[in-house]
Amino acid sequence: MAASEPVTLAQIAKRAGVHISTVSRALALNSTGVGLDTATRIRAIAEEMGYHPDPAASALRTRRSGALGIIVPRITDYVLARIYESADDAAHARGYTTLVANSNDDPGLRMERLEKMLARRVEGFLIGDARLDGDDLVQALKRRGIPYVLVNRRLRGHPSVTTDDVRGGRLAGEHLIGLGHRNVGVIAGPEYASTCVERTHGFVERFLSAGISVPDSCVQPSAPDGEGGHAGADALLTRHPEITALFAINDFAAIGAVGAAREHGRIVGRDIAVIGYNDIPLMSWLPVPMSSIASPMDEMGRRGSEALHDILTGVDREPELLEPTLQARDSTLRVEL
Amino acid sequence: MAASEPVTLAQIAKRAGVHISTVSRALALNSTGVGLDTATRIRAIAEEMGYHPDPAASALRTRRSGALGIIVPRITDYVLARIYESADDAAHARGYTTLVANSNDDPGLRMERLEKMLARRVEGFLIGDARLDGDDLVQALKRRGIPYVLVNRRLRGHPSVTTDDVRGGRLAGEHLIGLGHRNVGVIAGPEYASTCVERTHGFVERFLSAGISVPDSCVQPSAPDGEGGHAGADALLTRHPEITALFAINDFAAIGAVGAAREHGRIVGRDIAVIGYNDIPLMSWLPVPMSSIASPMDEMGRRGSEALHDILTGVDREPELLEPTLQARDSTLRVEL
Repeated sequence: MAASEPVTLAQIAKRAGVHISTVSRALALNSTGVGLDTATRIRAIAEEMGYHPDPAASALRTRRSGALGIIVPRITDYVLARIYESADDAAHARGYTTLVANSNDDPGLRMERLEKMLARRVEGFLIGDARLDGDDLVQALKRRGIPYVLVNRRLRGHPSVTTDDVRGGRLAGEHLIGLGHRNVGVIAGPEYASTCVERTHGFVERFLSAGISVPDSCVQPSAPDGEGGHAGADALLTRHPEITALFAINDFAAIGAVGAAREHGRIVGRDIAVIGYNDIPLMSWLPVPMSSIASPMDEMGRRGSEALHDILTGVDREPELLEPTLQARDSTLRVEL
Repeated sequence: MAASEPVTLAQIAKRAGVHISTVSRALALNSTGVGLDTATRIRAIAEEMGYHPDPAASALRTRRSGALGIIVPRITDYVLARIYESADDAAHARGYTTLVANSNDDPGLRMERLEKMLARRVEGFLIGDARLDGDDLVQALKRRGIPYVLVNRRLRGHPSVTTDDVRGGRLAGEHLIGLGHRNVGVIAGPEYASTCVERTHGFVERFLSAGISVPDSCVQPSAPDGEGGHAGADALLTRHPEITALFAINDFAAIGAVGAAREHGRIVGRDIAVIGYNDIPLMSWLPVPMSSIASPMDEMGRRGSEALHDILTGVDREPELLEPTLQARDSTLRVEL
């Protein structure tokens, strides 16, 4: 069938011997109300007939749109903005343009934004907001064969370029163990984010391997921002005043923890240690410069973009883990136990 | 002439009685190598003939692309990310999608990014990086009749939605005068940004109107970030150890100033006052909560987006100024003179 002549849903329905509404449902990104076998069969027929959901895109199949989409929780989060910047730079270097969308970590909103991007003929996606609690969007991309690469957060079995967050958590643990801390708390972030879960896991595991257990009551789930860090540190120091060090799963939560510690009469960098994660530039400018685990944000964006280009050009990519590094500063180094 | 039939440069050249290369130059965004009268005449002919630079766009003239472009200095700057977020929300609410581009405040790069966006049939622009030192890009948009609205920074004679930064500078000055400060320094940012120039101007003017002069050597141009704030405060405190208060043209510069003050043996919130600008959430989380002039970032993005929509639909818009407010915290309130 000629690529330049759009295939209609009615033609597919006729060939498949089903009603047009069944075809429509089967070809929707989130196919519901139609059995899996039927949906698979209809998609195979549609593909064979050269169907494309957007007639304009159909005509453009040989003339690529050149647009990549990037979905992030929020672009006001410095880490995501930085990943986006470097991904965008690398994409431009290969002749792509990019579109960015905020999902606010809202499953409905991200699906809506994804669909708008598909309507704009976006060829492939960098997904920065993957969820551990059943990720309909990523599963839909995989099922439909739409190219994507996860950045920031990862899911097993999906192409990704992320920091080795288990290792980053271990580095933070090792640093505090070396400084003599035995009673520690974790401001652990939300449980749907692999970053938070893996950082916490690596941290707790490193203490365990040194013979020190970190009880569950010392691991406080939180929002991943300054307010979450403030509330998390407050809860931990109320329950466990014996805590001498806090690990926060990101830098903004670590900064929030400093204020909460002060409300508990504890000065960070003097009588309580705090270490964050990502090492945003702010950490070294602060009045008490703060320790952090540096995450290679620029490299993540760049390599994520390159991985997506590879997949778009038919090259398979294995999940890639980047190396975190410890940046030790006064907020941990100057505490005397 | 039928809208569906693309007009070629050759047809325009024939009608205008000039060579095709002259038409090409006259219709370029940055028309060079052709006299203004000739360019104007050729453009009038092209417009009359229904010419559009992109043949695909020509066919789409009745079916709008629905894309708006937003150019910012850097999306990793929280203030610009926040303006972008709210502009994007408002644009989506009216059925637009948006593209964002970083210019790094580089005149060549921003022109390149603009051209790529035009190639993607972007209908109108929000410009967040206008320059006082002769802005080729904004002038080109105006000359070509491409709809745009300035946000963040403004230029006289162009549609804009910005904070009243002169007033914001005055509020900071009034606050420090009220607290008894007579020797003050300004970390003034780059001179091409209206935000920085107007904030500094309002601040110095408010001191003057109270009978206190702020000498030029107390106004330090700087980069608009933490490092710039650090270097600026260091220069000011070295030249003028008698300074008791610093005004930084943005919050990151204010945070950088705190570290520099400490290197000069001065503790912010105790023996030196520092006030920033924009009031990003971080300011209230910091160990010593910092005073700032709050800029209505969300409102700016939203109203900027609405103004652009108005212009796209043929409604004229006057420049709009939003009200800044003082947020006084420990970094100024707890200093004893």
